[in-house]
Amino acid sequence: MNETKARAEDPKQGKIEPGSQDTSLKAAPTRRASGRKKVVIVGGGFGGLYAAKSLAGKEVDVILIDKKNHHTFQPLLYQVATTVLSPGQIASPLRTVLTHADNVEVLLDELVGIDLEQRHVCLAKGDVISYDYLVLAAGARHSYFGHDEWEEFAPGIKTLEDAIHVRRQILLAFERAEREAFLKEGDDNLSFAVVGGGPTGVEIAGAIADIANRVVAPDFKTIDTRKTRVMLFEAAPRILGMFPEDLSQKAKVQLEQLKVEVLTDSPVETLEAGRIKVKGEWIPVRVIVWATGVSASPIGKMLGIEVDKAGRVPVQPDLTLKDRSEVFVIGDMSSLKDTAGVQVPGLAAAAIQEGAYTAKNILADLAGEARRPFTYKDKGTLATIGRNRAVALFGKVELSGFAAWLLWALVHIYLLIGFRNRLTVMREWIWSYITGERSARLITGNDV
Amino acid sequence: MNETKARAEDPKQGKIEPGSQDTSLKAAPTRRASGRKKVVIVGGGFGGLYAAKSLAGKEVDVILIDKKNHHTFQPLLYQVATTVLSPGQIASPLRTVLTHADNVEVLLDELVGIDLEQRHVCLAKGDVISYDYLVLAAGARHSYFGHDEWEEFAPGIKTLEDAIHVRRQILLAFERAEREAFLKEGDDNLSFAVVGGGPTGVEIAGAIADIANRVVAPDFKTIDTRKTRVMLFEAAPRILGMFPEDLSQKAKVQLEQLKVEVLTDSPVETLEAGRIKVKGEWIPVRVIVWATGVSASPIGKMLGIEVDKAGRVPVQPDLTLKDRSEVFVIGDMSSLKDTAGVQVPGLAAAAIQEGAYTAKNILADLAGEARRPFTYKDKGTLATIGRNRAVALFGKVELSGFAAWLLWALVHIYLLIGFRNRLTVMREWIWSYITGERSARLITGNDV
Repeated sequence: MNETKARAEDPKQGKIEPGSQDTSLKAAPTRRASGRKKVVIVGGGFGGLYAAKSLAGKEVDVILIDKKNHHTFQPLLYQVATTVLSPGQIASPLRTVLTHADNVEVLLDELVGIDLEQRHVCLAKGDVISYDYLVLAAGARHSYFGHDEWEEFAPGIKTLEDAIHVRRQILLAFERAEREAFLKEGDDNLSFAVVGGGPTGVEIAGAIADIANRVVAPDFKTIDTRKTRVMLFEAAPRILGMFPEDLSQKAKVQLEQLKVEVLTDSPVETLEAGRIKVKGEWIPVRVIVWATGVSASPIGKMLGIEVDKAGRVPVQPDLTLKDRSEVFVIGDMSSLKDTAGVQVPGLAAAAIQEGAYTAKNILADLAGEARRPFTYKDKGTLATIGRNRAVALFGKVELSGFAAWLLWALVHIYLLIGFRNRLTVMREWIWSYITGERSARLITGNDV
Repeated sequence: MNETKARAEDPKQGKIEPGSQDTSLKAAPTRRASGRKKVVIVGGGFGGLYAAKSLAGKEVDVILIDKKNHHTFQPLLYQVATTVLSPGQIASPLRTVLTHADNVEVLLDELVGIDLEQRHVCLAKGDVISYDYLVLAAGARHSYFGHDEWEEFAPGIKTLEDAIHVRRQILLAFERAEREAFLKEGDDNLSFAVVGGGPTGVEIAGAIADIANRVVAPDFKTIDTRKTRVMLFEAAPRILGMFPEDLSQKAKVQLEQLKVEVLTDSPVETLEAGRIKVKGEWIPVRVIVWATGVSASPIGKMLGIEVDKAGRVPVQPDLTLKDRSEVFVIGDMSSLKDTAGVQVPGLAAAAIQEGAYTAKNILADLAGEARRPFTYKDKGTLATIGRNRAVALFGKVELSGFAAWLLWALVHIYLLIGFRNRLTVMREWIWSYITGERSARLITGNDV
């Protein structure tokens, strides 16, 4: 154990005299230092949380570090942005999820450095924590393909704060249109752009159309929100590229039923506040939502090895760094072709499998057993399109329309972390389905 | 109607040529200009919202202006700050509440000026709206008695944003204590100060004690949150000064059962980040919540008449300005001794009565009937103290303990705007009562 050394190196901790090293072991970071192996997990998303859950009650000391106090159920974040669900319904405090895991300590802090030689990590508040095993699971954000300045005008949805921000933008767009129409008889053109025709973009575009056509329509007295224009821009020749072509086509038809304009072969050339340039033409839009590209956590770059274009860390078949079998990199942060030669996709399902698998390998080490390489189990892919509509692919089985949508709802309810959240989300969906109401239509924040 | 003039005066609108005045009437702000009297209501709190609701479907055109898109149920804001309820459960979009009120237009904007002579108001985005009747109902915030610099370190709870901010502070205090105790074996002293022993202060202090003793206790593995110190500071010799002395005493006993230290005769001398000075002594505290003092909306000062120390506007018995019978000032913004000589209190119940009363007088004008002076109907006063505990006063009837608490819960459920919210809040309370769980324990915001 090298906590003493780690502390001595940390300038904020002050020097520890050589003679005091023995006693300082008692004051080491773990406090409950038990002689057991120490596993430090960075990130409380799907990968990190499932690793921690799989290690709960085992003969290891686990420290889970996250910037946020909650796990966010990312597949439903877009429903917060589109007023279906409230933030509290898709997020659970990490402490609460892990309340019965006596060997797991949760720390609200941020990783700022890793020393692979000394086996310790440095935290933003100046502390240093040693590890026997390190699990890096800090996820990814959207990539703006070298145009980070676009983010201000075209936010993505990766955190609760992002989702609340986008919800705010969407609702304010209607408010502003109403205001202009009422006071100035002005332009009440309402246009939304969604960039990226993957599952997220498709879900957001469908949900915005649903808000405009159904949810807010009765509440606005001057504008007709059903005249809202929703455009979905996709650079490739078709949306939902990971699905077979006929499902892409079905998704397109379903989006068009919701009056979404599906614009394929339409890469965004540039954008700024209130407009977006596609195929040489500037299109005025009130809100742009970004839903494409992957940019892995900058933590990957701290490792001093070459990462891929998206910032993902290449890993060994057991998800560890080359020559560092104690360092696992999982979820959206890492890049792996598994034993079957399949590139593991950046999905919640994959991160969950990797988290559980990592825990299993750590326990195998402790039991003196051999590790096994990771194999991704494809349990199917789903994309929902507004209310009642979806496409799904399970191996060779394709589904679309209401059946796919129902399946989508059931799968997401099942996966939701925390019994409580499952109940409230299910109730919310049923209520919203029956009444068409939305409970989460608050604009919070300070400027009008 | 003088929209034309108003517009011409507004520098942002540009000049309108004299000859164009006739046609510009059509382009006037109301759009649906009907020849009917126009009522402009500023503020969507209890006063403004009940005025608008009481005018719904009547022969007037109503414009309700608010900086926020939602009505906030202020009496339960402290429950958002203390993790019982989610923001969406105590707030409803104003548009949704007024969806069936075809003659009420809601505008998201901010009042920046009033011209009582010309009878128009100026909005932050540069528009000018004329009125036949003006209802000012913009509420109040807490007062820091000339020390506005304290607000940064001792936030009050008047808006959803405030409540989310305080919730964040409270939850972060526990996170930081756990972090320090785990990593540094350092000071895990957890102290909270609540300033002001009125109903709000009593409710917050009780609720924080409840969080520490019951809600988060099982989730923290290094610190014992039940050792949390909650101090309630009151300048007067007793808390809940508006109640009879024996109820104040009962409230004190109930708070002490929750391990809240009730410190009366203890005005705050000064405070800064992390400490508060009382009776010459600096007391270290992790969080300070401010719950005293009234500072009425600055809109009162735009009227060019003398306001009282708290910024409240003195009004005539019919709640109007002297010599301006078309301008009503209601709710926490105004100050009135009613016909019975009673100073109308700054309570939701009073604002609701004043809003409904104002609408009635406007309709009386239109019907050529005489106005009646306002009389406040005291329907009782309640203060809750954590779970199961409360004090209540109805005329001469006093209640305390569980019976008062149950009554408090029923009254607040009944008053909640919107059928939907009533259901979800009731369900949340019942769930939280039975399980001791809290659903709203998210820390949102960006810094750790």
